[in-house]
Parts: sequence; C-alpha cells; structure tokens
Amino acid sequence: MNRNPQLDEKGALQHLLTIEGLPREILTHILDTAASFIGVADREVKKVPLLRGKSVFNLFFEPSTRTRTTFEIAAKRLSADVINLNIATSSQTKGETLLDTVDNLLAMHADMFVVRHAQSGAAHLIARHIGPRGHVINAGDGRHSHPTQGLLDMYTIRHYKRDFSRLSVAIVGDVLHSRVARSLIHALTTLGTPDVRVIGPKTLLPTGVERLGVREFHDLRRGIADCDVVVMLRVQNERMSGALLPSAQEFFKSWGLTAERLALAKPDAIVMHPGPLNRGVEIDSAVADGVQSVILAQVTFGIAVRMAAMSILAGN
Amino acid sequence: MNRNPQLDEKGALQHLLTIEGLPREILTHILDTAASFIGVADREVKKVPLLRGKSVFNLFFEPSTRTRTTFEIAAKRLSADVINLNIATSSQTKGETLLDTVDNLLAMHADMFVVRHAQSGAAHLIARHIGPRGHVINAGDGRHSHPTQGLLDMYTIRHYKRDFSRLSVAIVGDVLHSRVARSLIHALTTLGTPDVRVIGPKTLLPTGVERLGVREFHDLRRGIADCDVVVMLRVQNERMSGALLPSAQEFFKSWGLTAERLALAKPDAIVMHPGPLNRGVEIDSAVADGVQSVILAQVTFGIAVRMAAMSILAGN
Amino acid sequence: MNRNPQLDEKGALQHLLTIEGLPREILTHILDTAASFIGVADREVKKVPLLRGKSVFNLFFEPSTRTRTTFEIAAKRLSADVINLNIATSSQTKGETLLDTVDNLLAMHADMFVVRHAQSGAAHLIARHIGPRGHVINAGDGRHSHPTQGLLDMYTIRHYKRDFSRLSVAIVGDVLHSRVARSLIHALTTLGTPDVRVIGPKTLLPTGVERLGVREFHDLRRGIADCDVVVMLRVQNERMSGALLPSAQEFFKSWGLTAERLALAKPDAIVMHPGPLNRGVEIDSAVADGVQSVILAQVTFGIAVRMAAMSILAGN
Repeated sequence: MNRNPQLDEKGALQHLLTIEGLPREILTHILDTAASFIGVADREVKKVPLLRGKSVFNLFFEPSTRTRTTFEIAAKRLSADVINLNIATSSQTKGETLLDTVDNLLAMHADMFVVRHAQSGAAHLIARHIGPRGHVINAGDGRHSHPTQGLLDMYTIRHYKRDFSRLSVAIVGDVLHSRVARSLIHALTTLGTPDVRVIGPKTLLPTGVERLGVREFHDLRRGIADCDVVVMLRVQNERMSGALLPSAQEFFKSWGLTAERLALAKPDAIVMHPGPLNRGVEIDSAVADGVQSVILAQVTFGIAVRMAAMSILAGN
Repeated sequence: MNRNPQLDEKGALQHLLTIEGLPREILTHILDTAASFIGVADREVKKVPLLRGKSVFNLFFEPSTRTRTTFEIAAKRLSADVINLNIATSSQTKGETLLDTVDNLLAMHADMFVVRHAQSGAAHLIARHIGPRGHVINAGDGRHSHPTQGLLDMYTIRHYKRDFSRLSVAIVGDVLHSRVARSLIHALTTLGTPDVRVIGPKTLLPTGVERLGVREFHDLRRGIADCDVVVMLRVQNERMSGALLPSAQEFFKSWGLTAERLALAKPDAIVMHPGPLNRGVEIDSAVADGVQSVILAQVTFGIAVRMAAMSILAGN
Repeated sequence: MNRNPQLDEKGALQHLLTIEGLPREILTHILDTAASFIGVADREVKKVPLLRGKSVFNLFFEPSTRTRTTFEIAAKRLSADVINLNIATSSQTKGETLLDTVDNLLAMHADMFVVRHAQSGAAHLIARHIGPRGHVINAGDGRHSHPTQGLLDMYTIRHYKRDFSRLSVAIVGDVLHSRVARSLIHALTTLGTPDVRVIGPKTLLPTGVERLGVREFHDLRRGIADCDVVVMLRVQNERMSGALLPSAQEFFKSWGLTAERLALAKPDAIVMHPGPLNRGVEIDSAVADGVQSVILAQVTFGIAVRMAAMSILAGN
C-alpha cells in the first residue's frame, strides 16, 4: 500500500510536503485555521502559546532570508523556540549525510523541521526517514513544491473571491520553472476551480500542462480576458540571459502586466505575485502598487497560513 | 510644512533617526527613561515585558555584529521577538528594492526596524516611507548619524557630571568621518553645553565646523586643557594607509591620549570612546584601562538607552 | 597558590574549561544534575525557567553549527536569552582584542559565555580574565579540551554500564588530534575506570600516552577484545590526504569498526562516536545503525549535560 506520506495512519496531517494529493478537507482545514490566526497579528501581544516549549528548526540547505523570515515569525508568534541552521556551511561539508544530520536533531528532541533545499524531493526524503517521530514542512525544494506558498495563494483567492467554483484564474509567466505555479494549480483543481489558465511563451510552459486540467495561452491579452484572478510569476533574473528568455525589456513588452492589459480582465480582478517583485519585468509598478493588487495581503496571509500549518502539525 | 520626520502629529517620537532637531524635552525623556532601565540589568531576571509580542527586525545592510548585539540584547530584555536580517545576502541581491523589502516586513506585522546601512539617509528614507505604520531606529547610516550612540554619550556625561551647563567637552580625532562626533555635538549643543571643542589635524576636521558652535584645535595639549570630558574617536584602520592619515605610530605620537596628556585636563575629567578600541593608536592602554576611563560604563548605559528608545517608540 | 581556575573560592564550579583537574564530586554532580534534565525533553512544554532573564553568549571564533546548536537548545530549554556571535566576521577584524570584546559583553551584563576557538587555551584566557564576573564554558579549543563532550560520554557510559570500577573502555582512532579522547581519558581515570585502552596507528597516538594511565594498542582486534565500551573517534578528512593518514579505504581496512570486529568485544558492549560520522571510514554503517550503537543516545544526553553545566554555573 502506497500511503500518502503526508498523513499519519489516522489520516491526520503528519508532514506538509506538497499540495499534490492533499485531501480537500485538509486543505480547507488549514485555510480555516489560518483565518483564526489573522486576528493574532492585530493584538497588543502578537503571540499565542500553542507551540510553547517546542523546538522548530529552520533547516536551510540553500539561503532564502525571505522564506526563513516568514517561518521564523510564524513560529515565534506561536511561542516556539526557533533555531536557524544554515547547513551549507555546516556539517554537510564535514561529510555527514543529510539523514544523519536529521537523526542528530531528532535526538536533541526537535519537534518540527522547516526544510529548504535546492534538490527536488529533499523534504520528502527527510519526512519518509522521520515518519511519526517529528514533522516536516517543505519550504521549497528545487522547482518541485512550496506548499505554504500555494496555500497562501488559495487563502488570498478565497478571501477576495469567496467561492472557487465560478472562478477564472490566470497564471502568467515562467510556469516551467515555478514551484509556485505547480502548487497553485494543484490546489485550485482540488478546490474545484473550473477555469485555470497558464499564459506564457511556449519555452516557459511545461509540455503536457493540459493534462493538469488547465488551458494554455501564448498571448497575454487573450489569456487574461475576463479572468477573476491574475497570478504573475517571478522571472528568475539568472535565466534572463540564457536561451530561454529574451532580455528584461523584451519580456516586459510581451508578458509584463500593465494597467492597459489588466483592463482586459474582469473589473474586480485581483493581481497576485509571490514576490520578490521584478518591477518593470513581469509587472509594471502602477499595477503592483495599484488598487487591484493584493500582493502585500498575500504576505500577511502567508504568516497566518504558516502558523496554521505549524499548529495543525503540532497537534492543536 | 516641513514637519520633523521623527515626530508624529502630536509631537511624540515616531522614529529615532538623528539627534539633530530632536527637541530638548525628548532627549531628556529618553535619558530619564534609560535611567529607569539601569536597574533591570541587576535583577535576577533581567527582563521587563514592555515589548512582549512585538516583532523587532534588525535590518542590517552592512554587517556590524557589535551594534546588532546591543540592539538584540536591549530588545530581548524588553521581551520582544527579535529577527535578524542580513540583507546583503538576501532579497536585495534578487533585485527587490529596499522599500519593497520594508513593505513586505510591514505586511508581516513588523513593529520596529533597527536599520544599519552604509549610505547616509537610508534610515530616513525608510522612515518617510513607513510613516505612522511602524518605527525606525537608525543604527548608523554612512557617516551621517548614529543617534543611540550620541544618546549614550550624553547619558554617560550626565551620569558623571550631572549638569551640562558648566562643562567643557573635548572631542578628539577623526571628526570628519565620525557619525559619533556629529550626533554628540548636536546633543551637547541642544542640552546647553557651553564649551565643545573638536581637536585633530585639519584634514580630519570638517570645514566650517565652528558653525556648529564648537571650537577647533589643531594641538591636542592645548585643546584638552582643563576640560571635563575627553571623547576619543576611533581611527578607521582602513583610512590609515591613505593620504588623510599618517601611520598608526605617527597618529599616536600627535593625537594619541596618554596619561601625561590627560593630566592637562581637569583632575576629575572622564575619558570616553565609542569602541572598538585601537589600543596604541588613538588611546594608550594605561588610559583606556585607567581610573578616569568610563568606556565600559558607556557600553552598559548603551543597553539602557536602547531599551529606553525602543520602549518610548513602542508607546510605553 | 595555584588555585584551580574552574572553581571559585568556595570550591564551587565557576567555569567549565576542561575535565582535567575537575574534582570527582563535581563531575558526579554534573552527571546527576543532567539525569534530572532528561525528563524535561519528554514534557509537553520542554522548558524550565532556571536561566530566565540570563544572557548566554555563544562566542564562536570558528564556525561549528553542530556544537553551537546543542548549546543554543540547552540554553533555550533553560529559558535563557541566547545571542549568537560569530566573531570571525566581526570586531576582531576591526582590530579589537579578544579580551576587549569580552569586557564589552560583560558591560552589557552577559552572564555566561560558550566559547569555541581554534587556539588551545582561548577559553582559559577568557575565564582567567573574567574571574568571578561571569561564567565560561569551553566548547572546544584547538585540540585541547571539549569538556561537555567528555561529560556526555561519561553520562552515556554510566547510563548503560552503571559502575565505572569494573569497565574496560577502548578508544579507537586518531587519539593524537582528538580533544574528545583527551577529555574522556581524564574523566574515566577520575571516576576510577580500571582499564582504558587507546587503539590506533603509532602516528596517531600521542607519545607517552601511557603516562595518562592508559594502555596502547596498535592492533584493533587485540585492543577491542572483551571490552565493555568502544569509543570510535572521528577521522578528520582534512588530515586524510597528508602524511599521517592513508586513504579512507586504507584506514577503514585497518581501523574501521565492522560487525565482525565488534564481535570481539563483550556481547553487550556499547559503541560510541562523537559525530559527525564518517560512514565507511572509521565505522561501518551496519555498526553505526546497529543495536549496540548508542551514538544518538549520546546526542540526547549531550543536551541534558549542557543544561546541567549551565544550570550549575548559574548557581542553581
């Protein structure tokens, strides 16, 4: 039997590795729990004691201050003890294996690992090794998964649009290299979104993307027409000079979101972006800072979603 | 109307950016509040809950372990959650703008930013952008300002000398490149110190320094005569090999504070230094470790002053 | 009078620098206290308030994420405020002396320093300078001492074997460069272990090691025969290519612990290793992960031992 590696034997969430294969009720439970944490940030004392005395390890095998910060804030607001480990500079270089490192931290009574790794499947590998002895949250592994980003995107859409069953969602840009896009497509499908579109040059859309139940567009204007949600993906600067991508200016000309292009979507369409922004590359500043942008709300919701995931994993 | 960017509309402290232009009553309020925190460090449990549940971000765009440590200690003694961000290695390199980074942290409900930046005006820029949505403390921006250092200097002088209205204060060394000197001169003037002197080679004194209400000396012996307070500035080693400064030995010969030279000041004169010390360059070890030295007391007072600034900004 | 620098005038532990010269009753007191902390890790809230409001500084002059993590966890479980200082990149490069750095931190009311330094004697130097003004724990200085490692080894042996007075303990590998071996030999001798053996090639055993009261073996099979405890030392990879050591494969052939060799020890012999493991160099995976291995238990006990040391130093 090939049991879902994210669930324990009773079907409860043991690890959060990917949105793929997460049951709809667990997705919804995380979003509902996140909603209950939104208020915590507005309190005089922005803390709840749900993880008091728990040890959360940020296990970052590649640096990402931005992602590490969001998990560190979430864990501290839950009153956990947080320990940041930048493993690149540590015992890995002394030849210890990844799983030996994890076993050592478990022996120190680590409760939860937030794992960031350049290689796809690293978080899964750790979770499979740990099993019921602890909890793993995937904070991005290669171009594979980044489930809390997908969840905060879902939270954001639900917050502004309420019901997934009537939505048109357009995902624009480098879908091929985006773990954000992958997580999001799975979550949208799971929650019953009828119309998901990916928009970008052929070279940046995965082959066979229709099999995920989405429609493919190679023209931004046609793809964006009448949609409710526009998710702009970040262009990786390091890919810009290669064969796959033209220059930043060329990219903006064909695929950048401007006010004029956004006007083709529904009048109340919202604009999302996972950050950090490349202003003038995939998005115009007038749009990023405009009234339809919910990009900073995504950041706020992201903390609540991470608190929710940690809290649920810890058994609350 | 060009309102003081450090004050809110009611005249309360919103950001601490520079001592320049800080009203006398706010300066005095910070020093008085610091006095109330001196005792905290002697308690069995060195903590007060004034910032419990608040998120303080150390936003360091240039590394300074020493400065970061003082703010981290101060924030933790106030029970804040502290998150250290070394931005040089982070999203700045991904092309995100400084203000986008700040907006993201605000969206995570950051309460206070301690900002260190190599460029003058960086903390002001952030404070202007944030406005009433949070609090900024300038922890050093280029050679411009470092207000908590100026405040701890004032605290130290007040602690040992009580009344500013009768004092002679000598500031010795590389005044030109010193943010310490600039902050201190403003604070001394604001609190009514009648005699402030800057002492150093012409190449290291700013042109027109007299306009700040201070006297200029190019001879250490004459400048130091009969003063109550001697503030030695740190010589930047990286400047030592250039055209502005002779060798360390040469510098010490002309401008180093020795016991024999200190004897020209008042018998109860105190010796201050912002640290870290260059022993044998700007100051002799016999003086740095001598009975007139209050250099380590400055460090102690520095924690109390930073706790006071944070506590006042947070509205306590 | 050349008083023990680790003890205060009443004979209580002031600093933990080395196991060498620690009275037997203090060793035993640390182990007994550690036993009382073992249960803390199994609680729902893994914290005790013994160091609440105390400031513990991890003063790491060479990087060691692994060691730093164990002390950080121990201090946080005692509710201390922990501040990590990586000094290599800090004021040391600005020319401040080691002792000036320490004086500054004391002026900030630091309570305890966990010191890691590449040079032998660095922790002693700091402890001598501080005297009764604070507490120092040596977390490894050159190849000299690493007392909490020695203590956790003792704890592990006592846990599994109860009584030192009948034990045969074999220490295998690069004894010459190992601070682990040195600390352990002293502790075993102090607690009355009758038979301590060091096993390795002549080039990796210190000359005159018999004077420490141990027996020397140059053959693993003969050395390991009928012993109760096998302590495998880590081979430093960086030494592997030099004149002292053959290749990793060669080393494993002569000195690697395999199941077949371990069978020469007593049937209930335990296998220890300070970590990180070089699988297939000094130890075979089948042994490292086998039923006689207590390597991960050592890690667990290590947290309790560090909590005990900190708690005793802080006067609890």
